[in-house]
Amino acid sequence: MKHFDRTAILEADKDFRRDFINCLSGYKSLNLIGTINPDTKETNLAPFSQVFHVGANPPLVGILFRPHSVERHTLENILQNKCFTLNHVSPSFYKAAHQSSARWERSEFAATGMQEAYLDNFEAPYVAESPLKVGCRLADHLTLSINETVLVIGSIEHVYVERDEALGEDGFIDLEKLGTVASSGIDAYHTGRKLARLAYAKPDQPVKEI
Amino acid sequence: MKHFDRTAILEADKDFRRDFINCLSGYKSLNLIGTINPDTKETNLAPFSQVFHVGANPPLVGILFRPHSVERHTLENILQNKCFTLNHVSPSFYKAAHQSSARWERSEFAATGMQEAYLDNFEAPYVAESPLKVGCRLADHLTLSINETVLVIGSIEHVYVERDEALGEDGFIDLEKLGTVASSGIDAYHTGRKLARLAYAKPDQPVKEI
Repeated sequence: MKHFDRTAILEADKDFRRDFINCLSGYKSLNLIGTINPDTKETNLAPFSQVFHVGANPPLVGILFRPHSVERHTLENILQNKCFTLNHVSPSFYKAAHQSSARWERSEFAATGMQEAYLDNFEAPYVAESPLKVGCRLADHLTLSINETVLVIGSIEHVYVERDEALGEDGFIDLEKLGTVASSGIDAYHTGRKLARLAYAKPDQPVKEI
Repeated sequence: MKHFDRTAILEADKDFRRDFINCLSGYKSLNLIGTINPDTKETNLAPFSQVFHVGANPPLVGILFRPHSVERHTLENILQNKCFTLNHVSPSFYKAAHQSSARWERSEFAATGMQEAYLDNFEAPYVAESPLKVGCRLADHLTLSINETVLVIGSIEHVYVERDEALGEDGFIDLEKLGTVASSGIDAYHTGRKLARLAYAKPDQPVKEI
């Protein structure tokens, strides 16, 4: 078993530390965030692995933005335009999704070949190829004093699920049927293979698969 | 394509909405959080899917706690004792991990059969069976005014990686080699299958696998 204490982590090579620490939380969600600059009308698309559930009622999602990074275009657009889209990534276009993280001088849609989709008069672009699309409005944002990362809270306004058979009657969305891709570290991509769904846990009762 | 707008989501059955909204971010990390009550010395263990990367330098991790839930034991212990452990879950004990979410009257270690491990004099219990263990100190915490969830920021103090061959020279930890389990929704568990690692993206250069 390899052990790294805080000193070893802080003294490690910068690139080593970045990848290593990014791996520690485990598998991460992967979403393309679509935005538009309300002045220039230029669209923006970037992959994010720090999107997480914040609440179901009201339905809220959180995104953590690194300070001073290339992703700031996305954050600036969200703060100006007050809306954005989340788009799951499939194996058929995960390389284009990765490529959208480069420092393009033009819209990442045009640069990488992913298609813009505008649905139900929502003011931010969705990714047409995405099997699960979520339209969000800016609900709150705050800067974490500890390292200047910015936490954006989005209110979930629209959800589009591509395949009827991926959505269960109980609300469960089968990410494998959708082909949703997960990420790990800073550059790895994965599909999922289901072990099981397990019934609500109760003391002294055996675990039951659903 | 199925479409749900905000009204449809808010009017849906409570259980449907909970599972549906929990699925929207995509695959989620899964960590068992180990804590101890400094007064009674009773240990506590609970599964969390809202653990995420906050920063690499200094190394920080974030956890979002729902308000007024059974998980509050974990939060109370962290606020009192100022430390906790994160422990990846393997297929061999993911059912015990799920079972630790039940409302036990005693320590979830004893109740579910997972073994406590104490390493390098750290004051919180690790899960002996876990292939990746992280020891954290409380660095900051804040309550999100939008829905009273509590964001805990942990400073990463110790990392233990079970298999030497899972850790690359570049800092990448191969979660598949570790057997790390991911979650989705409120009750689904998955393993990962790697598509590829992709080199740092640059404009107008083809995507390269590492």
